[in-house]
Amino acid sequence: MIKENLTLLTDFYELTMMQGYYKNNRNDRVVFDVFYRTNPSGSGYAICAGLDLVIQYIKELHFTYEDISYLRSLNIFDEDFLDYLAGFHFTGDVYAIPEGTVVFPMEPLVKVIAPIMEAQLIETAILNIINHQSLIATKASRVCYAARGEAVMEFGLRRAQGPDAGTLGARAAVIGGCVGTSNVLCAKEFGVPALGTHAHSWIMSFENELTAFRTYAELYPSNTTLLVDTYDTLRSGVPHAIQVFKELRDAGKMPAKYGIRLDSGDLAYLSKKSRQMLDDAGFIDAGICASSDLDEYLIDSLKSQGAAIDSWGVGTNLITSKDCPAFGGVYKLAAIEQNGTFIPKIKLSENQWKITNPGNKTIYRIYETDTGKIKADLIALVEETFDESKPLLIFDPISTWKKTTLKPGKYKMKEILLPVFRNGTCVYESPTVLEIKAYCQEQLATLWDETRRLINPQEVYVDLSKVLFDLKNEILDTVNSQKESD
Amino acid sequence: MIKENLTLLTDFYELTMMQGYYKNNRNDRVVFDVFYRTNPSGSGYAICAGLDLVIQYIKELHFTYEDISYLRSLNIFDEDFLDYLAGFHFTGDVYAIPEGTVVFPMEPLVKVIAPIMEAQLIETAILNIINHQSLIATKASRVCYAARGEAVMEFGLRRAQGPDAGTLGARAAVIGGCVGTSNVLCAKEFGVPALGTHAHSWIMSFENELTAFRTYAELYPSNTTLLVDTYDTLRSGVPHAIQVFKELRDAGKMPAKYGIRLDSGDLAYLSKKSRQMLDDAGFIDAGICASSDLDEYLIDSLKSQGAAIDSWGVGTNLITSKDCPAFGGVYKLAAIEQNGTFIPKIKLSENQWKITNPGNKTIYRIYETDTGKIKADLIALVEETFDESKPLLIFDPISTWKKTTLKPGKYKMKEILLPVFRNGTCVYESPTVLEIKAYCQEQLATLWDETRRLINPQEVYVDLSKVLFDLKNEILDTVNSQKESD
Repeated sequence: MIKENLTLLTDFYELTMMQGYYKNNRNDRVVFDVFYRTNPSGSGYAICAGLDLVIQYIKELHFTYEDISYLRSLNIFDEDFLDYLAGFHFTGDVYAIPEGTVVFPMEPLVKVIAPIMEAQLIETAILNIINHQSLIATKASRVCYAARGEAVMEFGLRRAQGPDAGTLGARAAVIGGCVGTSNVLCAKEFGVPALGTHAHSWIMSFENELTAFRTYAELYPSNTTLLVDTYDTLRSGVPHAIQVFKELRDAGKMPAKYGIRLDSGDLAYLSKKSRQMLDDAGFIDAGICASSDLDEYLIDSLKSQGAAIDSWGVGTNLITSKDCPAFGGVYKLAAIEQNGTFIPKIKLSENQWKITNPGNKTIYRIYETDTGKIKADLIALVEETFDESKPLLIFDPISTWKKTTLKPGKYKMKEILLPVFRNGTCVYESPTVLEIKAYCQEQLATLWDETRRLINPQEVYVDLSKVLFDLKNEILDTVNSQKESD
Repeated sequence: MIKENLTLLTDFYELTMMQGYYKNNRNDRVVFDVFYRTNPSGSGYAICAGLDLVIQYIKELHFTYEDISYLRSLNIFDEDFLDYLAGFHFTGDVYAIPEGTVVFPMEPLVKVIAPIMEAQLIETAILNIINHQSLIATKASRVCYAARGEAVMEFGLRRAQGPDAGTLGARAAVIGGCVGTSNVLCAKEFGVPALGTHAHSWIMSFENELTAFRTYAELYPSNTTLLVDTYDTLRSGVPHAIQVFKELRDAGKMPAKYGIRLDSGDLAYLSKKSRQMLDDAGFIDAGICASSDLDEYLIDSLKSQGAAIDSWGVGTNLITSKDCPAFGGVYKLAAIEQNGTFIPKIKLSENQWKITNPGNKTIYRIYETDTGKIKADLIALVEETFDESKPLLIFDPISTWKKTTLKPGKYKMKEILLPVFRNGTCVYESPTVLEIKAYCQEQLATLWDETRRLINPQEVYVDLSKVLFDLKNEILDTVNSQKESD
C-alpha cells in the first residue's frame, strides 16, 4: 500500500551514527538481531508478520535529491557524507522467519548482516513494521481462538492509529485468523475479503426501521444482515427483521445468507432472546453477528455463557491491541566482522534475561515426531551442525538444571530463519496474505492447547545450544573481569 | 506525507449504503457530527488534531480506474453506481475546530454537511485521522505538563503502529508540546526539529566506551550528548563522559550544548548521582537527558523525587498512548434536509449521555473576562444568536439543576467551529505544525490548573443552549411515545 519512499523513516541518530562511521572509515560488516523479550497480552506465543513490507522497504531504499537537500539544510552533515548517501543502496544479507510463523521470546525474527552504516540505517523502519504487524497478528490469533473457529471480522479502521495502522493492521489481523476486514483499501491491496452491511445512519435516514430493512433486503438479496439495535433491539429491531424475512420467504426470495447484527446492550441476553424469536418464526438458519467492544476475553466469556452468536465483528481492541498496544521488538548488535571473522558482541544488563545472545545465529524448531507439536526451539550459531540420528540434549539457558535429552526418531529439527536478501538482492518471494493465513493456521496447530490458553499459558522453551551458551558465558566473564580491573 | 489516494480507505458498508441511496434516488443533504464521549487517559480535556490530513484527503477524493475495476470484481455493485463513483467528488461543506484547540466531550470537532452519499463515504477516514492524531496530541500535552516546561522529545517511531502512526503521531506529539522528534521523515515533512545522538550499538562497535565517546565528541562539537549506560552508568559511563568533557575543556573546545543520556536503571537515583559527579568535575551546565519507558506518571513521580533530569525522551507510551490507545470519536447523523429544512435526528441509547445531540449545531467557547480562562462551552443550533451585552444562563444538560447566570462584561463568547470546505472547495489554510504547537500552548493556558491535573481533573462544563435542550427533549418525547404506541 505504501507507495512513497520510506528511506527517511528512520531515527535521526541512525544518520548521525552513519556519518560517524563514514568519517572514521568504518564500514565493517555486522550482525544485528531483531527479537523481543515478552509475548504481548500475556500470550504463550506471538505470530510474526510484516516481512513483506520490510522487503519492499529495503528494495526501494534510496535518498532522493529532496531528501539530501533536506539533510543538508540541517547543517550537521558534511558534503562527502551526503554524496555517500546520494549513492546509497542496500548491499547486505537479511534472514527472517516467514510471516505467519509462531515465534517466542529471544528468537531472532529478522537478522541483518551488512556493512554497519547500512545495518544501522534500516533499524528503525524494520522495528516499526515488524513490531506493528506482529502485534496485531498475535492479537487476532487470540481473538479467533476465543471465538472457537467462528468467523471473526476485522472492523477497526476508524479507531486505528492512522491509515497504515488500519490497513496494515487489517492485513495482519487476516494473517492471524480473521475472515476479512471492513477496510476496502486493505481488501483491494492484499486480496482479502471486504465485509460489512449498513450502519445506524442507514436506519435513521429512512422514515422508519421497517422501510430501511426492506430497502436493504431488496438491494442485497444474497446476503441480508440487518442491524437491529438502532431503536430497541427486542421490541423493534428483531421483530422488524423477522417481518422482512417472512416477506422474503413468502415471496420465495430467501437470501442465501441472512441474519441480524447486534451492536449494543448485553450481547449474551440479547443474542439468546433474538435466537429464540428467530427460531420461533422458523428462521433457524438466520445468523447472529455481534460487535461492540469485543476482545478475546469478552468473546470467551460470552461463549461460556452460551451466547447465541455465530460471527464476531471486532474493532478497537483488535486493531490497537488495546491491552498491549506495543510489541517490544528490539534490534541489537550481535557481532562485528574483523579480518573476515565475526567477533561476537554482547549488551549487558542488570537483568540476566535482558542480556543479549552474541554471535551469528540461527534457530531450529524441534518437533515431537509422534504429535507434530513443538517441543522447544533451539538458538545456535550458524556454523553448528546437528544430527537428528543422535540424541539431543537441550537445557534452559537461565535455569540450566532444566534438561531433557531427546531420543533419535522421537524429534525432528527444522531451521526457521530463512534467507531473504543476499548481497542486497531479494531471494525470497512473499506468499499472498491468504496463503500466509493458511500457513499460520498450520503453525498454530503445532502449539499445545496449553500454550494457546488466553490466560497464564504454558511457555514454550527457547534454549541455547551448548556452544552458544558457553560462548555467552565466556564473553560475560571477560567483560566482568575487565570491569573489575577498571 | 501520505501521497497515495486514500479514497478506498473506508468501511465496506459505506459503499453498500451509498449504492442503496443511489438506487433509491436519495441524496438528501445531511449533517453528520464527529464527537467523542470521554477524554482519553482520564484527562480533563483533549487536543484536537488531524484536520490538515482530513483536508488533504477530501481534496484528493476520487475513484481511480483501478479502484472501480476492483469494486466491479466484487460482483455486488451495479454499473450505473460504478459510473457514479467514477465521477465522484466532494461537493459539501465541512466545519471543524482548528488543530491544537482544547476540546471536551460531546462537542462536534468536525461537522459535515453534504449529500448523504458523500457524507457517508468520508466517515471512516475522517474518524481514523482525527481519532489518531487527537489521541497522541492529548497524550503529548499530558507528558509535557508532567515535565513542567522541560523539553520532551518524541522517540517512539520503532514502537509505533506502522509508518503513519510513527510519522503522523510524531506530528501530533509536537502539536501537543514536544520539542521535536527522532523521526526524520516527520521532521522533513512537517518542518519540525529532528533530534537524537547515538545508540548503544555505537558504543559497542568501538573497542571501548571512551574511544566511542571521544569519536562522537569530535564529530559533533556543538552538541555532545553521550549515552552512558551501555556497560555501567556510574562506574564506567559517567566517568568516561567526564573524562571526555575535561579533554574538551582543556583543549578550549567546550561544546555549546553537552551532557549525558540515561536509558536504563533507576532514573531518580542515577540522575542525582550523575549530577553530583558532573558538578564535582565543574560541569554544572551539562544536561541530563533520560529515556526508558517514560510516561506522564513516571515523569511526575521522578520530578517529585527531585530527579536531576532536564530533558526527556519519550517513546512507546507516548506514540501508542499506551494506557488508552484509542480515541473514541464517532460520526453521528444529526439532521436530514427535507424540502430545504434540516429535520433534526437523534440516536437513542439506554445511557442518557450516549444519546446524540440533534440538529445543525455550532459551539461557543465562553471565557471569563477577568482570568481569560474557559468558563464553559455552549453547544447551540447554528441559527441561534447570542448577545454578550445581556446575561447568559447556562445549565448542565444532564443535571439541569446545575445553573449559572453569567453577567454582561464578565464573559466573552467565541465560536470555535470554523468553515473548512464550502460547496466542495477548501476555504481554510492550515497553519504550520510549529504554529499549531504555539497556538496549542495558548489554548492550554485557557484551562484552569485543576483541569490539567493528570489524575481526577476538574471537568469543564459543556452545556446545551436552552433551544437545543428543548428540541432534544421534544424529539425524545416523540420517539418514546411512538415506541409506546407500537
